[in-house]
Amino acid sequence: MDRLLEEYTELIDHKLREYFKTVLEEEKAYHPFIGDVFAQVEEFLLRKGKRIASCSTLLAYKGYTGEIKDIIDICVGIELYRHGILIHDDLVDRDEKRRGGDVFHKLFTYEDRFGESIAVFYGNILFSQALKTLFESNFDVNCVGTVIQLFLEDYKAVNESQTLDLLFEHKEPTVEEWYVMASKRAASLFKASMLTGAILGGAPAQDLQILKEAATHIGYSFDIQDDIIGTFASEEQYGRSTGGDILLGKKPLHIVYAYKLANRDLQQELRDIIKAKKVGAEGIDRLKKIIKECGALAKTKEVSKDHASRAIKLINKTAMTAESKNFFNDLIDFVTENLDWYQ
Amino acid sequence: MDRLLEEYTELIDHKLREYFKTVLEEEKAYHPFIGDVFAQVEEFLLRKGKRIASCSTLLAYKGYTGEIKDIIDICVGIELYRHGILIHDDLVDRDEKRRGGDVFHKLFTYEDRFGESIAVFYGNILFSQALKTLFESNFDVNCVGTVIQLFLEDYKAVNESQTLDLLFEHKEPTVEEWYVMASKRAASLFKASMLTGAILGGAPAQDLQILKEAATHIGYSFDIQDDIIGTFASEEQYGRSTGGDILLGKKPLHIVYAYKLANRDLQQELRDIIKAKKVGAEGIDRLKKIIKECGALAKTKEVSKDHASRAIKLINKTAMTAESKNFFNDLIDFVTENLDWYQ
Repeated sequence: MDRLLEEYTELIDHKLREYFKTVLEEEKAYHPFIGDVFAQVEEFLLRKGKRIASCSTLLAYKGYTGEIKDIIDICVGIELYRHGILIHDDLVDRDEKRRGGDVFHKLFTYEDRFGESIAVFYGNILFSQALKTLFESNFDVNCVGTVIQLFLEDYKAVNESQTLDLLFEHKEPTVEEWYVMASKRAASLFKASMLTGAILGGAPAQDLQILKEAATHIGYSFDIQDDIIGTFASEEQYGRSTGGDILLGKKPLHIVYAYKLANRDLQQELRDIIKAKKVGAEGIDRLKKIIKECGALAKTKEVSKDHASRAIKLINKTAMTAESKNFFNDLIDFVTENLDWYQ
Repeated sequence: MDRLLEEYTELIDHKLREYFKTVLEEEKAYHPFIGDVFAQVEEFLLRKGKRIASCSTLLAYKGYTGEIKDIIDICVGIELYRHGILIHDDLVDRDEKRRGGDVFHKLFTYEDRFGESIAVFYGNILFSQALKTLFESNFDVNCVGTVIQLFLEDYKAVNESQTLDLLFEHKEPTVEEWYVMASKRAASLFKASMLTGAILGGAPAQDLQILKEAATHIGYSFDIQDDIIGTFASEEQYGRSTGGDILLGKKPLHIVYAYKLANRDLQQELRDIIKAKKVGAEGIDRLKKIIKECGALAKTKEVSKDHASRAIKLINKTAMTAESKNFFNDLIDFVTENLDWYQ
C-alpha cells in the first residue's frame, strides 16, 4: 500500500498544483484579496499528508478499468470536497492546528471574526468547486449526475453527523446513539470516495452494494482509531495537544464505553474531569487511566478491529483487480496495526 | 405585479410546506434532534415574505412556456438555496433579526457556539438540498446539468462577494471596487433565479444573454435600494435597528459616494462616527445628514434608477410573454418607487 499511496499521492498533488495555478490566475484577476485567500487555500490543501480519500477513489476506479487517466481530475474534486468539510469542522471545533500548520480560520489578519467568516465562505466555495470538477471531467453526463447526487447526499449526511457530534457535547449518548452519529461521518466520506471511483469505473451494481457496506466498515474502523489517537497519542506523535476533544465535551466511542463499563464512582470522576475542562496533563492522565482500567479502551479497539475484518471480507468479494483489493486490505490492516500502539 | 406575486407566493409556500412535511418525517426518523433542527428550518423559511427570487424563476419559465406545473418544484429549490445563503450571511454579519423573527443561529439553546455551529451546518445542508430538488424534477438531465453548473458558479460568486464585503469593513473601497464586490452579490442571485426559469423554459440563447444582463441591473438596483433602506428606514418600517450595518463597518454605495463627494471635514466626521461604533440615535442621525448633504444619497438613488431603467429596456427586448414582461417591469418600478420614500 505504502508504495501505491506514495506514488498516487504525488500524482494527485501534481494535478492539484495545476488546478490551483489556473484558478489562482482567475481569482487574482477578480480581486487581489480574493487571490490572496485562494493562495491560502492552496497552501492549506497542499500541506504534506497521505491522500487516503482520493487514492481510494483512484484505486476503486483502477480496480474496474485498469486505467487512471481520467480519474485524476476527479481526485482533485475529492480533495477539494474533503478540505472544505475540514475547514468548517476546524472552525466549529475551535481547533488550532491541522496537518502541521494553523487551521484555515487562523490564517487571516484583523479580528477573529474576519478569519472565521472567511472560513465559512471558503468551506462553501470548496464544496461548489469540488462538484464543478465533475462537470469538467471526461465522464458522461449520466454518470456525473449519479456521482453529484452521491455527494449532495454525503454532504448532508456529514453536516447532520457533525450536528449530532455537537449535541453530544451536552449529553451522554448510548453506544447505539453514537452509531447513529458515526454512520454519517467518516463512513460517509469513504462511501462517497470509493463509490465515485467504482461508479465512474463502471462497476457492476452488485459490487456498488458491497463497496457501500465495506466503505461503511472502513469508515467506522478509521473513525474509532482516529478518536483513540486523539486521546492517547503523545503530543509529538499527534501534532496537537491530546485529550482536547474530550475536554471540549466530545463523546468518542471509548468515552461512550467508559460511561457504560466503569463503576459508578469512576463514572462520576470521569464526568467531573470532563466538566472541569481545564484539568492539565494530570487530569488527562487520570482520564486515560479510567478509560483503560474499566475495559473501554480494549472494547473499543475490538470494535474497530471487527469493522476492519468485515471490510476486508467484503472487499475480497468484489470483482476489483488484485492490486486494488490489496491496496484496500493493506489500508485496513494499517488501521488495525495502528491501534496496537496505544496501550 | 402584486396580484401575481401574491398568487405565486402562495403556490410556492404550499409546495414548500409539502416539501417540509416529507423531509421532516425522514429527519425525525434519523434522530429526534435532527428533526427538531429541521422544524426550525421550516419555520425560518416559511416566515411571511414575498418570494421575489423564486417568483422570478417562475415568471421567466412561464414567459417562455405558458405553463407553471413543473417549475414549482424548482422554486422550492430556489428558496432553499436563498435561505441557506441568508443563514450564513446573518451569522457572519452577527445580525439579530430576520423577517420578524430571530436569525437562525439564535434559535438554539446551550451556548452561542452551539447555534452558530448549527447555522454553519444547516446553511450547507440547504445548499445541497436545493441542488437535489433539481435532480428530482421532471426536467431532462442535460438541462438540469446546465442549471446545476449555474448554481455552483453563483454560490462561489456570492461567497466571494461576501468575502469582499467583509474586507471592506477594514478599508474604504472606491466606486469601482464596490462594483467588483456587488457584481457577485444580489446581481448574482437574480441571474441564477431568472436564468434557471429561462433555461428550463427553453429560452433562445440570445434571450439568455439579454436576461443575464437584465438580471445584473435588477440586482444592482435592488442591492442599492436595500442598503439605502438599511440606513434610512425607521425601525418600525424596517423591523430591525437602522444604521447597524454601517456601524459594523459595512460600505454600502451611499457611504462609498459620501467618502467621494463630502468635503474633507465631513469625510473625517463620517470616519469618526463609523469608527466609534456605539454612537446612538444621535450619531446615526448625523450620519444620515452627512450622506444627504454631500449629495451621496441623491447620487446613489440616481444610480439605482439608472440600473432599473436599463433592466426594463432589456426585459422588453426578450421574447417572453407580455404577462412576464409586465411582472418584471412592475418589480423594477417597485424598487425605484421605494427609493423615493427616503428623503
